[in-house]
Amino acid sequence: MGTVESAWSELCQHLREIEVLSSVTAVVHWDRQTMMPPAGASNRGEQSALMSRIVHERLADPRVGEWLDQLRESEELTEVQKAAVRNIGRSYANAVKVPGELVERLGAARGEGFGAWVAAKESGDFNGFAPILETLFDLVVERSAAIDSDRPAYEVLLEDFNPGTNLAVLEPTFDRLAVGLREFIQAVSDVEPMPKLSETFDVERQQKLMRQVAGSVGYDFDGGRLDKAPHPFTISLGPGDVRITNRLYDDDLLGGLGGTVHEAGHGMYEQGLPNNLRGTSVNSAASLGLHESQSRFWENYIGRSQPFFEWMMGPLKSFYPESSLSAQDLYRAANRVTPSLVRVTSDEVTYNIHIIIRFEIEKDLFSGRLKTKDLPDAWNDKYEHYLGVRPSNATEGVLQDVHWSGAAFGYFPSYTIGNLYAASLGATLSEQQPDLWQNVAAGHFTPILSWLRENIHSKGHLLDAPDRMKVVVGERDSVEDLLSYLWGRHGAIHGLKRPSA
Amino acid sequence: MGTVESAWSELCQHLREIEVLSSVTAVVHWDRQTMMPPAGASNRGEQSALMSRIVHERLADPRVGEWLDQLRESEELTEVQKAAVRNIGRSYANAVKVPGELVERLGAARGEGFGAWVAAKESGDFNGFAPILETLFDLVVERSAAIDSDRPAYEVLLEDFNPGTNLAVLEPTFDRLAVGLREFIQAVSDVEPMPKLSETFDVERQQKLMRQVAGSVGYDFDGGRLDKAPHPFTISLGPGDVRITNRLYDDDLLGGLGGTVHEAGHGMYEQGLPNNLRGTSVNSAASLGLHESQSRFWENYIGRSQPFFEWMMGPLKSFYPESSLSAQDLYRAANRVTPSLVRVTSDEVTYNIHIIIRFEIEKDLFSGRLKTKDLPDAWNDKYEHYLGVRPSNATEGVLQDVHWSGAAFGYFPSYTIGNLYAASLGATLSEQQPDLWQNVAAGHFTPILSWLRENIHSKGHLLDAPDRMKVVVGERDSVEDLLSYLWGRHGAIHGLKRPSA
Repeated sequence: MGTVESAWSELCQHLREIEVLSSVTAVVHWDRQTMMPPAGASNRGEQSALMSRIVHERLADPRVGEWLDQLRESEELTEVQKAAVRNIGRSYANAVKVPGELVERLGAARGEGFGAWVAAKESGDFNGFAPILETLFDLVVERSAAIDSDRPAYEVLLEDFNPGTNLAVLEPTFDRLAVGLREFIQAVSDVEPMPKLSETFDVERQQKLMRQVAGSVGYDFDGGRLDKAPHPFTISLGPGDVRITNRLYDDDLLGGLGGTVHEAGHGMYEQGLPNNLRGTSVNSAASLGLHESQSRFWENYIGRSQPFFEWMMGPLKSFYPESSLSAQDLYRAANRVTPSLVRVTSDEVTYNIHIIIRFEIEKDLFSGRLKTKDLPDAWNDKYEHYLGVRPSNATEGVLQDVHWSGAAFGYFPSYTIGNLYAASLGATLSEQQPDLWQNVAAGHFTPILSWLRENIHSKGHLLDAPDRMKVVVGERDSVEDLLSYLWGRHGAIHGLKRPSA
Repeated sequence: MGTVESAWSELCQHLREIEVLSSVTAVVHWDRQTMMPPAGASNRGEQSALMSRIVHERLADPRVGEWLDQLRESEELTEVQKAAVRNIGRSYANAVKVPGELVERLGAARGEGFGAWVAAKESGDFNGFAPILETLFDLVVERSAAIDSDRPAYEVLLEDFNPGTNLAVLEPTFDRLAVGLREFIQAVSDVEPMPKLSETFDVERQQKLMRQVAGSVGYDFDGGRLDKAPHPFTISLGPGDVRITNRLYDDDLLGGLGGTVHEAGHGMYEQGLPNNLRGTSVNSAASLGLHESQSRFWENYIGRSQPFFEWMMGPLKSFYPESSLSAQDLYRAANRVTPSLVRVTSDEVTYNIHIIIRFEIEKDLFSGRLKTKDLPDAWNDKYEHYLGVRPSNATEGVLQDVHWSGAAFGYFPSYTIGNLYAASLGATLSEQQPDLWQNVAAGHFTPILSWLRENIHSKGHLLDAPDRMKVVVGERDSVEDLLSYLWGRHGAIHGLKRPSA
């Protein structure tokens, strides 16, 4: 009795310190991406490495295992305690099973990998990146085997980013989605793409506009801030301090808008986590896929809708009274669909094909069907097969993404998992809130955020994401939800009708 | 032999980790002052407290004592090793002698003190602040006794901020300075003060101007940045990352300019420290007084000189072509002398009287001649005695400074120590560089910075500040240097002649 109580209390106190130290590491990281002068890079690397080591040491503290064992013996755990035992059990197991020297080798290889990737991307020469990529791959395989040698290495990685997910579910899901998306892309390839915007917008006023938009959808600036960053991201620096970033160009208002609303979606998830449960591990996101569902939901489902642009005309005209654009112009340009080579600038339809290509390539790598040295050709063939476009060099092909240079194999699927979740969340929300689109057109976003707060954000990591989704949306088919949403919006814009429907 | 070598190597490695952790704490602190959203304050407090505890634990690690003992036994230490044994010996002794629970009580009292001070300063009610001030005072006395019960508590504090300084030297120095300053203030009180500037300057362009000025005098933006902050400060976030801050008002160009050049002076000192000696403790400032000498030297000796404003006309007119001010207008307004109530906005002559008042009050507190509850009257009497002005309330009187609310008794003298050092450095430099003022008028600041780099910055904490000053300026009388400088510049402007000269 007393033992379980004291084990719980000591575990929470220990974990709270780890949380605080991790939030310190987040300050250091945010600053590096947004504020740090160039000459600070070397010491900043030492700061991050040392903080990671200190956090890892505390995570692998044998007392954590003892507290967990004591809790596991109890049959009267609360819902929060049960979730904590599951969550902390995972991170403790990973921390203990992966030898420190492997962590250090991985850290060093990541550093080398990033440098080699930057150089290779600049020169377009994949061969300069291939050796370290092979090393990173081997290390990741070694790490997966250390964590669980009985399961496929790729599945161990997937679960790192998306606990509760496995290949048996993901593979047929992505396969079905691929079939449906190819059908749409085939249909859309016969019609003229929507025109881009022709006007330009100076970035200083744009940033003010973006602040207003982020604040309007519900991102809380009292506990956050929006800054420029070369690679936009969202990061929590601890409770009450969740920051978002964006990147703006004079000639790409919609790119900046989508990016800002996307990061605001991530930010609102972090801002809505249950801070009253600090030190329990339940006060964190359930998975990266669920995180991505929040950003994608706001960016695409809400942020590319016609009512959203009707509302946007007010803020837009207040900052750019000289603009002659209409809501319809924005709506159509924001929903332009064209197969392209680069993931991060692709439209929301073909985006998932970019992910499916990476997923298939990663599976081939981990099954041994593909060697890292053969990646460029495999990549180009997939792009030709799925999108009818073929990269002319590695820079716009296999070298476009940073992920693998940081050993983040198994991360890409999170993006499409997020899109699938977002589609089912959108379908459910629009059933439960019949006046959803009237609210959006009126800039009345509170009911939407409240619904997400109640159903997703405030639940933290009580359940793994797939289980949380079941509770919120029921037994929906998310592939069908996503395809139906895409055909509904984009089919209508392009004057297409879903053949099978 | 081998023992000393390995002790040295292990000590340096240990200390380098402490340095890295301290630099992490600095990132967290800088961010709090410049970037953090309001709701982040609570977690930020936890971050700082935890990082301080981790740094303190490592500083008090018994192995540090053992390594020091091994080094002390050797008779063949290098110059750097000898300095390190002295510096680290001090901080280790402090870390070990002050019990952890006293550190925590002090930390808690500081937190409470700051809150009570903010409230009291707002309401003007000293009585709301008096009880916690008394507690802070008692704790500081207790801490001093723990460090060295054989020496006066106030001297222990002084040495914390200015190692190598003691009351026996400081007291007669400040007394002589007070006499000289009162003579000048008496003389200047009979003439009309220089007029203030009448033009206003929008702060956005001001900040661009300030960047140019800071960069021109030698502050390196490749390893630094300049941001706004409510209470301007300089902080090193580690090698290659030394940041400065300022505060600008439309109607106070010269206040912003002086503040910026002041912080640039601090920043250049930090940027010039010997980063090749990381982990030795020698790669740090020798004292806060010497630090202040660098900021004051640039702010006053250079930055209020006539040649400086001749150079300034170029940058000023490039940003404010509409301004009709002349170099002479700026020079005269920048050297306006009037007795006033508030230290931070006072001129460079009366500034030292503000410090001497605080020094005398602190001495009276620690000798028991004065009780904390009687501070307001004592404060007001001193102001009337020295400056002929009497605060009408505690807000513009004893509550104006934050220092005591943070238990920083013994800190104030650093400012005037800095002014004294700066005067002797200026006198020496102008002897060694006869074309000094031509260079300043031409915006050619490199010879000045090079001289400071060579004589002060690059020497780090090899010697304590008083010893370093002797090496650089010889056996000069810094009181005479300061008075002579003040009479020279301000006497000329006001048409006064030094009576005793």
